[in-house]
Amino acid sequence: MKETLEWLAEEVAGEVERGCAFRERAAEVGMGADGTPTCRIDQVAEEAVLRMMDERKVPLNVLSEEAGFIDRGFERTLVMDPVDGTYNALMGIPFYSVSLAVCTESMNDASHGLVRNLVTGDLFYAERGRGATWNGRSIRVRPFDQQNSVLMIYLGKYASPSCNGVVRRARRTRSLGCSSLEMCVVAAGLADGYYMNSDVYERSLRVVDIAASALILREAGGELFDPQGEVLDLALDLRSRSNCLAVGDTATLRWVQ
Amino acid sequence: MKETLEWLAEEVAGEVERGCAFRERAAEVGMGADGTPTCRIDQVAEEAVLRMMDERKVPLNVLSEEAGFIDRGFERTLVMDPVDGTYNALMGIPFYSVSLAVCTESMNDASHGLVRNLVTGDLFYAERGRGATWNGRSIRVRPFDQQNSVLMIYLGKYASPSCNGVVRRARRTRSLGCSSLEMCVVAAGLADGYYMNSDVYERSLRVVDIAASALILREAGGELFDPQGEVLDLALDLRSRSNCLAVGDTATLRWVQ
Repeated sequence: MKETLEWLAEEVAGEVERGCAFRERAAEVGMGADGTPTCRIDQVAEEAVLRMMDERKVPLNVLSEEAGFIDRGFERTLVMDPVDGTYNALMGIPFYSVSLAVCTESMNDASHGLVRNLVTGDLFYAERGRGATWNGRSIRVRPFDQQNSVLMIYLGKYASPSCNGVVRRARRTRSLGCSSLEMCVVAAGLADGYYMNSDVYERSLRVVDIAASALILREAGGELFDPQGEVLDLALDLRSRSNCLAVGDTATLRWVQ
Repeated sequence: MKETLEWLAEEVAGEVERGCAFRERAAEVGMGADGTPTCRIDQVAEEAVLRMMDERKVPLNVLSEEAGFIDRGFERTLVMDPVDGTYNALMGIPFYSVSLAVCTESMNDASHGLVRNLVTGDLFYAERGRGATWNGRSIRVRPFDQQNSVLMIYLGKYASPSCNGVVRRARRTRSLGCSSLEMCVVAAGLADGYYMNSDVYERSLRVVDIAASALILREAGGELFDPQGEVLDLALDLRSRSNCLAVGDTATLRWVQ
C-alpha cells in the first residue's frame, strides 16, 4: 500500500507541474462570487489520482474533495485531498500538498497516511502501529516548552475571535494555509500545535483535509482534539466537519485552552 | 551588478544546501536564553557572501546581520540578510531567502534588489526605474479588493495587540515568517499587504531585512509606510528599526489603519 500511495502522490505532483504550470498559475486565478478561487489545479490533481486508480486497478473506494464518495466495490477507502493549500499554490507559496489516507469506517481507523509537499517533494508517511517518517527518517513530537513555543493557527475572516487570544500566546506563530503540512510540522517535533477554529461551519475541517496528517501526527506521538477537548474523529463523508487542536504534547492543549 | 547579485545568491543557496543540510538542520536547533535559535545556517550563508566578495573583488562595502558594517573602501554598500526566515529553515518550512540590495546612503536610494527563496530558487529582482521581475517575468501589484483581500502579518509573542484587529479583517491571512518573501508576494500582485507591528523595538524591521524587497515592491508599483503613514526609509545601520505596512495599492493602507 505504501508504494501505491507514493506513486499516486508522485503522479499528482507531476500533473500539477505539467498541467498547471507554476508560472501560469497566478494568471489563472479567478474568483467566484463566494471568493473561491477557480483554478484548474484541484481538478487536474484529482483526475490524475482517479485515472491512475482505474489504470492500475487500485482496490480502494474514493472519498475526495471534488468527486465526493466513489464506491468502487471495496472495503477500504482512499480519503484524499488532491491539493491541500490551493490558495498557496495560486500565490506561489511553496506550501501545499496532496494528502492520502486509507480508512474503513472513519478517520480514526486509518491504516496508512501520506502527505507530500507538491513543490519540494517532502514526504510525510505513517502506518498504524509502525511510527511516522519524514523523507524516510523517523519523526517524533516534542515536549511542550512555553518559552520556545510555536503554534500554527488558522486565521482570516472566518477564524473565530478566540484565535486572537491564542495568536499572541506562543513565542512564535505561523499561519501557513495548509492544515495537512502544518500538522506534519507538529508531528516532526518542530512546532507544538495546530489550532483551527472557525465560527463558520463550512470553513472548518473535513476528513479529506486531515485523515492522513492525523495518522502521521498520532504515530509520531501527538493527538487531535475537538473544541470540547475530546479526541477528534470524523466520519467518511464530506458533510462532517470540525474545528481542531492538534498537539504534539497534551500539555499544549491545557495551555491553549 | 545583476549578475553579481545573482551569483552571490546562488552561492548562498549552494552553501546552505551543502554546509547545513536540510535533514540535519532540525537536529542542529539549539536555543539560547533569549530564545534565539543557534544554527549554523546564518553564519554559513554570510561567510559565503563575504568570501566570494573578496575572491571576486566586488566593489561594494557590506552591511550584514552578523558582521555589521564592513568598510571595504567603496561608495556603495551591499545591504544583506544572508538568511531571512531562519526559523522557517529550522522548521523545514520552504519559505526563507537571501536578501541583497545595493544602497549608498539609505534604504531608499537602493539601485538593485534581489530576493531568492533558498529552497525553491524563486528569484525576485528589481533595478531602480526598470521594474521588478519574478523568475525573469515582469510583476506588478494589484488593485485592492476587500472581498478577496490577502494580508501577510507578523504575529507571535512580540506582535502588537493592534495586530489582532488586522488579522480578522482580511479575507485571507498568512503569517509566513519571512518578511522579504512576504513583501515579494505583495509585489507580485498576489497579496495586498504585509503588516509588521511589534511593541518591542528589537523585534521590528532593520534595513538588512527589507532593503531588497522594498525596492522590488516599489518597482512593482507598491509602497512601504511607517506606523505614522509616512513613506518608510531606514539608515544603513543595524540600530535603526521600524514597524512597517507594505502595500500594493495605497487603498490598503487606509483600510488597515
